[in-house]
Amino acid sequence: MYKAKINVTLKKSVLDPQGKTVLQAVHSLGFHSAQEMRVGKYFELSLNSTDRVKAEQELKAMCAELLVNPVIEDYTFQLEEVR
Amino acid sequence: MYKAKINVTLKKSVLDPQGKTVLQAVHSLGFHSAQEMRVGKYFELSLNSTDRVKAEQELKAMCAELLVNPVIEDYTFQLEEVR
Repeated sequence: MYKAKINVTLKKSVLDPQGKTVLQAVHSLGFHSAQEMRVGKYFELSLNSTDRVKAEQELKAMCAELLVNPVIEDYTFQLEEVR
Repeated sequence: MYKAKINVTLKKSVLDPQGKTVLQAVHSLGFHSAQEMRVGKYFELSLNSTDRVKAEQELKAMCAELLVNPVIEDYTFQLEEVR
């Protein structure tokens, strides 16, 4: 059993109006140390794969086919074994 | 300069219809090893705080006041120094 955490963000070259708006809101609350903000999606899922390599393969396929738009988005994931 | 990564998820006790729908879609694509799915938000921001303790304090305050709804959401964050 594996637990996967996937973070999806817009690519650096893609404008992120949502992030800009949140940054403005953060500033208006008085947090002027915040410099740059990007907003993305987060997926947490468990996989009952037998081995790590297979879990990783499936995860990458899921991201490519459904969870991530590779044209405008990047993703990172962490995979940890759960007993 | 610090870089913060914040993951926000619905609490375990709160129903996540979006996660359920994504899980169904993942299954319909043939990934039957996926067991449970929760969907959340992801924020990436940079802070020009002078020290780690202050950066952490500001981050927690931002989450409490704007980024997270503490009634139904939980969050985790990572803070790393960038030069």
